[in-house]
Amino acid sequence: MGQPKSANITWVDGKIQRADREKLLGQRGALLWFTGLSGSGKTAIALDLERRLLQRGKLCYRLDGDNIRFGLNRDLDFSPEGREENIRRIGEVAKLFVDAGVIVAACFISPYRNDRRRVRELFSNPEDFIEIYVQAPLEVCEQRDPKGLYRKARAGEIADFTGIHQPYEAPETPTLTLNTAEESVEQCSARIISHLEACGCLCGNGKPAEDK
Amino acid sequence: MGQPKSANITWVDGKIQRADREKLLGQRGALLWFTGLSGSGKTAIALDLERRLLQRGKLCYRLDGDNIRFGLNRDLDFSPEGREENIRRIGEVAKLFVDAGVIVAACFISPYRNDRRRVRELFSNPEDFIEIYVQAPLEVCEQRDPKGLYRKARAGEIADFTGIHQPYEAPETPTLTLNTAEESVEQCSARIISHLEACGCLCGNGKPAEDK
Repeated sequence: MGQPKSANITWVDGKIQRADREKLLGQRGALLWFTGLSGSGKTAIALDLERRLLQRGKLCYRLDGDNIRFGLNRDLDFSPEGREENIRRIGEVAKLFVDAGVIVAACFISPYRNDRRRVRELFSNPEDFIEIYVQAPLEVCEQRDPKGLYRKARAGEIADFTGIHQPYEAPETPTLTLNTAEESVEQCSARIISHLEACGCLCGNGKPAEDK
Repeated sequence: MGQPKSANITWVDGKIQRADREKLLGQRGALLWFTGLSGSGKTAIALDLERRLLQRGKLCYRLDGDNIRFGLNRDLDFSPEGREENIRRIGEVAKLFVDAGVIVAACFISPYRNDRRRVRELFSNPEDFIEIYVQAPLEVCEQRDPKGLYRKARAGEIADFTGIHQPYEAPETPTLTLNTAEESVEQCSARIISHLEACGCLCGNGKPAEDK
């Protein structure tokens, strides 16, 4: 990962650790990284998941491409460089949330395999990063067009639109693949819950993560 | 706050709100912004506070200048522009944590009044931003020199060091002023706890924040 710009900084190890926060919350922190075309259903599934987790008393927080660009990443554009820095920062923020013990639902097109790999590599425990490929054919996404973006892209009003002008690189080995042309939102979020149960994220006293 | 770079983004309102998460956690999210010279005691107080809050079953997360520069802000230097962007990003990250319902302890020298004001302005509810001035005379901080940075700065090994080469602009109206030359770490964190109690951050069913 290289050295940060100044060598005159020291890593401060707090007395309170991630495992303490996870014990308090009765869950294990993890990053659910939703990737897929615009209109594939990432946010819809994450919203349903968030609701289900809250009902079970679990803390989930959603990071969303549309939301985060009004704040942290408002200085970035949609060029390849801007997209790369966008994903890098989101990965770093998600890492902080996971360290806080939170289950993060990050919903970003994140079209480039390399950018997603770099986020994965931020986590020393591979169980912390759960890649969820929200899959739907481009035609289906374009028909749904929930924000009217495909229409604008086809009309030339948006440049650099993933799926139209720029490639989407599908994950090669995602943790889960959700086919939203065939599965309902509820079916998809239920599958994620099952995965979280299986890997011990929802067990109050199950297996809190080891601190790095 | 101006417009983000692309107008083709939509603010997504999740079904689950901040108030739902705060109810789950039994607390109100808030940003405790610790500002003061290096060696003034920001991190020591935040660590003690974190421990006390955990003992009361409250979720606190610490953002630290030394820690965050290994991750999110590893691309930034210590020039005035780098410091400004450093604080801007931290403010935006803290805002996300507060929205998640978390009590954030942000420990940063943050020497410029304008940078801190901009962080404050990120929060529509003034109770969300609690400025804590950790005050100690420069001579005291330099004597403590917990990381040996003053020594290096005096020896010319570090440039742009706050208090030596660059100014520290003290807060004009901080929520709390902690004088660490006279008060112990425990006394300081107890005063913060009292403030959090008084403003309803620690009441399980006290007064969850209104969502924006």
